[in-house]
Amino acid sequence: MPNTNSAAYVRVIEETPAYWRVLFDYPPFNIVDASIFEALQDLLVRMNASTSLRVVVFESANPEFYLSHFDLTGKLGNIMTAVGASGLPILMDTFVRLTRSPVVSIAKIRGCVRGVSSEFVLACDMRFASRENTRLGQPEVGVGLHPGGGGAERLPHLVGRGRALEIVLGANDFDGDTAERYGYVNRALPDAELDGFVDALARRIASFDRRAIAAAKNLVNDVSLPSADRLLDAFTSFGAALMWPEAQRRVRAVVERGLQRDADFEKSWPEALGTLLDTEIGSKSSLQKKGATP
Amino acid sequence: MPNTNSAAYVRVIEETPAYWRVLFDYPPFNIVDASIFEALQDLLVRMNASTSLRVVVFESANPEFYLSHFDLTGKLGNIMTAVGASGLPILMDTFVRLTRSPVVSIAKIRGCVRGVSSEFVLACDMRFASRENTRLGQPEVGVGLHPGGGGAERLPHLVGRGRALEIVLGANDFDGDTAERYGYVNRALPDAELDGFVDALARRIASFDRRAIAAAKNLVNDVSLPSADRLLDAFTSFGAALMWPEAQRRVRAVVERGLQRDADFEKSWPEALGTLLDTEIGSKSSLQKKGATP
Amino acid sequence: MPNTNSAAYVRVIEETPAYWRVLFDYPPFNIVDASIFEALQDLLVRMNASTSLRVVVFESANPEFYLSHFDLTGKLGNIMTAVGASGLPILMDTFVRLTRSPVVSIAKIRGCVRGVSSEFVLACDMRFASRENTRLGQPEVGVGLHPGGGGAERLPHLVGRGRALEIVLGANDFDGDTAERYGYVNRALPDAELDGFVDALARRIASFDRRAIAAAKNLVNDVSLPSADRLLDAFTSFGAALMWPEAQRRVRAVVERGLQRDADFEKSWPEALGTLLDTEIGSKSSLQKKGATP
Repeated sequence: MPNTNSAAYVRVIEETPAYWRVLFDYPPFNIVDASIFEALQDLLVRMNASTSLRVVVFESANPEFYLSHFDLTGKLGNIMTAVGASGLPILMDTFVRLTRSPVVSIAKIRGCVRGVSSEFVLACDMRFASRENTRLGQPEVGVGLHPGGGGAERLPHLVGRGRALEIVLGANDFDGDTAERYGYVNRALPDAELDGFVDALARRIASFDRRAIAAAKNLVNDVSLPSADRLLDAFTSFGAALMWPEAQRRVRAVVERGLQRDADFEKSWPEALGTLLDTEIGSKSSLQKKGATP
Repeated sequence: MPNTNSAAYVRVIEETPAYWRVLFDYPPFNIVDASIFEALQDLLVRMNASTSLRVVVFESANPEFYLSHFDLTGKLGNIMTAVGASGLPILMDTFVRLTRSPVVSIAKIRGCVRGVSSEFVLACDMRFASRENTRLGQPEVGVGLHPGGGGAERLPHLVGRGRALEIVLGANDFDGDTAERYGYVNRALPDAELDGFVDALARRIASFDRRAIAAAKNLVNDVSLPSADRLLDAFTSFGAALMWPEAQRRVRAVVERGLQRDADFEKSWPEALGTLLDTEIGSKSSLQKKGATP
Repeated sequence: MPNTNSAAYVRVIEETPAYWRVLFDYPPFNIVDASIFEALQDLLVRMNASTSLRVVVFESANPEFYLSHFDLTGKLGNIMTAVGASGLPILMDTFVRLTRSPVVSIAKIRGCVRGVSSEFVLACDMRFASRENTRLGQPEVGVGLHPGGGGAERLPHLVGRGRALEIVLGANDFDGDTAERYGYVNRALPDAELDGFVDALARRIASFDRRAIAAAKNLVNDVSLPSADRLLDAFTSFGAALMWPEAQRRVRAVVERGLQRDADFEKSWPEALGTLLDTEIGSKSSLQKKGATP
């Protein structure tokens, strides 16, 4: 049953018949929940139906949050259980179909992009980030989970095993410059130049022939995409991890601290993950202390 | 039937029995046609026959053009149809045998290196480029085609999927610094230091034992070369693309604009690809306008 | 039969139950011989036995030498012949088990790290190097051998084929900045910041759950580790190369020049490899000259 609003959260601006801009606009933080995936699924159908389309640029209406992260309050609808056109669960299906689409996808990044949102930009064909205003990362391990939407499979090919493990196990933010240096994004550009650079590249690609673009992308895909098997393993492992008691405890802790509610915390929460349970342990031991004193 | 001149276009300078320099010298632009491939095939035979040879440095006699690009005026001889020693078509066979040779190949890059020429340097073991004087790219998609000589297969391993797609789908030039930052070349060096750096490295390698070099290169090859199947897919797809009407229209347009004829255009043509058909469409619509007025 | 001293050469400092520092302290140069491998094998058993451990930082007690290189004077015990828990020979088994361990390994690099020592840090999950004080490389080809402990298999995935071939065939040192630029290490940091950066990262990871860390590392491993078959091929080829007469001649020459004996030579020996046999040839021809004159 379609969410009648989801289209508004992921708005299409048809710059030309060959070049669309797609705006994420899901206040307050562009949290990635079932509504976002529903809108992306609708968009994929619309992209497939257009024979004039060459390139889509994904950007955010909110400069603080590109897409923030996976919803940790349960608004997941059927994205973990229902299967999409590729035969993979909706969450993974969305990313896999984007990578295989004959249409070119470009992520134009400003603001926070973490976890499943990082996996979204990794599924885009290219990534350009604001030098001053990018916080990109895979913080799942810091809340007791791990990347489950392709991040662990796509990062090693882009940045090598060592940097992939630092990103995934360190569970912290990467700014634009470090992300460029690591190969996590194609380039970090001064914020004032980002729109112009991406627009020029998109218009250039939009001027090329659909068949040449599709054939070239297919050849690159053939030697660079992770297998569906590996992606499904990660997804299944992630689904299991959501049930781990230690993960649920950390998710509860991060939500109690203000995730998805407090804008300041939402901007900086990965920083807090290294001491996430300290206060909790603190209050527990102070409780025990209280219990110990008559 | 051997082209008696081809050897002059690809000249060998035997610095020592272990270290050869190979100069591309095929005026006016070092266009890559059947003559160049014939000379490279002869060179491979000569390299194989030498038991003292360790390393070959490939450079250009013309500082403006390393190797410019694939001949688009039909001087292809049998390089698309005849099969070489590896069992692959001559074009691909040349590159594949270079990668598998026990002799080390180093591309010392100055000037323009586009399309099939980029694929040549990607088939070399190492690439060092002039910081001030390098224009490297895979502009095929901009003329309605796609890389067909291994570029789409080798780039993702070097620069990651995102940057490979930017290079291949953006179809534009990369300067030395960006090429280094992306991993497209090993290093970009100040032009004044390039010769000294490469010469010292080549002489160093030339002092080592042939068996150690060959064994080490084999081990690296085993985990880094694309499969012959993938390369053949790309080649076959490229052969088909040459017949696409939209590709032929773009090739015609770029040749009409001055490719392989006008030195200024030859230096900068990828810049023009984003607006290649605009004048043509302009003249068509002005024709239609004329037709509409009595 | 355990070497009762080996534990002292590789000392464990338990910063917390979740975070250990491991110090290489095997004077004078931290040469990698059977004692080091024995100590590392013991350490792997101890790491596996701890259920609280999350992360191990490997560093050197000697700022000039992290681990210098493979012992070239024959103190190899059974590391080439006996088989470890993974079914691979001890040398390779040590590295492979480190990559697959649920515990995270971080190399904190100061000083010289060459050959098998480079292969050790490549087997660690992450590598952070002193910007001012790092000499990292795979100089085996310069002594007539080739990497045999995984270097040729791990480097291409990290730095691409071109830079891997430059490292392996050039057989020279890389400083911290170049190693970072190539992706050989995660980052080069100013020496004064290196300890603080690595300590903060290790404590952060140590605060995370063991199950999340292990699952995330497994997913990354599944798409980034070389196969045991490829590693065994390299090891076998290396074992054969040790018997090559030309290799033995070069090993003899480098030992005669002062390797494992002279501290200055030990610090800079890869520089000398390009002219290693020149004096030998010189003295031989002067001998011949003497023989020729009555």
